[in-house]
Amino acid sequence: MRTSLDCLPCIVRQAVDSARMVTKDEKQILKMMQLVFQNLAEADLAMPPPEIGQEIYAIIRRELKNSDPFLKLKKMSTERALALAPEVKEKIISSDYPFATALAFAIAGNILDFGVRSDWNEAVISGSFHKAAQKAKMFDTGKIETLYSEIKNAKKILYLGDNAGETVFDRLFIEQFPGSAEIFYAVKSSPVINDATFTEAVEAGLHNVAKIITNGADIPGTVLRKCSPDFLSHYQSADIVISKGQGNFETLNEAERKIWFLFQVKCEVIAQHYGYSLGDWLLLESLASE
Amino acid sequence: MRTSLDCLPCIVRQAVDSARMVTKDEKQILKMMQLVFQNLAEADLAMPPPEIGQEIYAIIRRELKNSDPFLKLKKMSTERALALAPEVKEKIISSDYPFATALAFAIAGNILDFGVRSDWNEAVISGSFHKAAQKAKMFDTGKIETLYSEIKNAKKILYLGDNAGETVFDRLFIEQFPGSAEIFYAVKSSPVINDATFTEAVEAGLHNVAKIITNGADIPGTVLRKCSPDFLSHYQSADIVISKGQGNFETLNEAERKIWFLFQVKCEVIAQHYGYSLGDWLLLESLASE
Repeated sequence: MRTSLDCLPCIVRQAVDSARMVTKDEKQILKMMQLVFQNLAEADLAMPPPEIGQEIYAIIRRELKNSDPFLKLKKMSTERALALAPEVKEKIISSDYPFATALAFAIAGNILDFGVRSDWNEAVISGSFHKAAQKAKMFDTGKIETLYSEIKNAKKILYLGDNAGETVFDRLFIEQFPGSAEIFYAVKSSPVINDATFTEAVEAGLHNVAKIITNGADIPGTVLRKCSPDFLSHYQSADIVISKGQGNFETLNEAERKIWFLFQVKCEVIAQHYGYSLGDWLLLESLASE
Repeated sequence: MRTSLDCLPCIVRQAVDSARMVTKDEKQILKMMQLVFQNLAEADLAMPPPEIGQEIYAIIRRELKNSDPFLKLKKMSTERALALAPEVKEKIISSDYPFATALAFAIAGNILDFGVRSDWNEAVISGSFHKAAQKAKMFDTGKIETLYSEIKNAKKILYLGDNAGETVFDRLFIEQFPGSAEIFYAVKSSPVINDATFTEAVEAGLHNVAKIITNGADIPGTVLRKCSPDFLSHYQSADIVISKGQGNFETLNEAERKIWFLFQVKCEVIAQHYGYSLGDWLLLESLASE
């Protein structure tokens, strides 16, 4: 998707917030923001928002001299998610339809915002658990059946990861995959925001259920023309591609191959443009034919 | 006050929204936004937000070839406010303390957002009326008494206007002023956002209760070093200065003379910085001594 004019204030907001995670020096942040504005003055809005984000976050890393500003946050997210994993797994296994429950928790993992929330407590967690259990029941059963059956018959599955922490829930979901497909879990090659890289995927234990690969880029999404040949070969040859998170949706929603998108609608631009509501949990089978 | 880093996304958001009031041509808006970003890349955040806004809105007017993008909105705001005026005046006169009630309505006028709201209906209006009546009772009586007494004893009062439409409520407030001071009502010299200029002040009938003057600038606030010598002479010689709206507060809160500020807190930056809450209705006697 193109970047909307409405994404611009949001990109500026994210740049300020991200910089504040690294430093409290407002002068240093202002100097960095001047470069961000210079970049935005020349940005091509034909690019999807995550591709614009790639340049913005590169400026942040370079100017604040921090190659991975979200490292601590990512670590905390993974630790919190790992601490919840046994309980979540129990809920998945004891549910009527473990595959659907695990799928809902994989989306829930996208919004628990493990590291960010200051009000992280039992109530928030149990609220999210409850929501995931409810959502699992609300998803279109026919669509879940289709995905289940495709996974069962697949020889090769490519799973596109999103944030650190969420990765743990992806693992719990993959554990419920039927069949015996070879599974590839793709992460970003270099740090960008709180997206999982190889390190965070391993910390989440994904190497136990999939082969972890990197996509060759540092974009909070998947821009194919900026991905590595190796990744692209997996992308083309996989029987199924499962894409997690809004960033991957923003960059792959016009892809030529069929993709299963799992994400929560996190912004009004996406909601209005595609006719969803803010906060919707989506399991989408993209329109493109295989 | 200085412009906060948190004002930057808000300024970008306002620029996009303002441009959309003039044109639906997203390409034209994007071209304009590139200039906005170039400007922000060099902006001096030591300036208050309205002064940064001055340049941004000048870019919008120039690039979209529209010298007064908010003209229609301002006209509609004034018309709607005028239609409500008889009822408001009746409520003021029949209240226990007409001066305090009129003061509350003058602040209410700042937030009715006459032209913007699409859900403008009886319920919204009566809700605002009810709130103004409640607020009138909640204001610090001692402070209102002080202002009342100062107005009563003043020879010359300078009243700094804010938005079109709100101007009508300013008139109803001025009508309740005790004493016989000469009253000057200052507006912006040239159009900027929906701020009142001479035209909108006359449409609101302010010429019947005050002498309307212009401040020499096109800033959505009052930046003294950019105001005209004539305005400054009124500003210095007035016994009382009454300042309406957040924009005037942002630009005059560190002024060397005492100012009475009447406004509603419309953003989190102001709320957090000064210890108010978003939505607070304020009657502030500035700390600077006369």
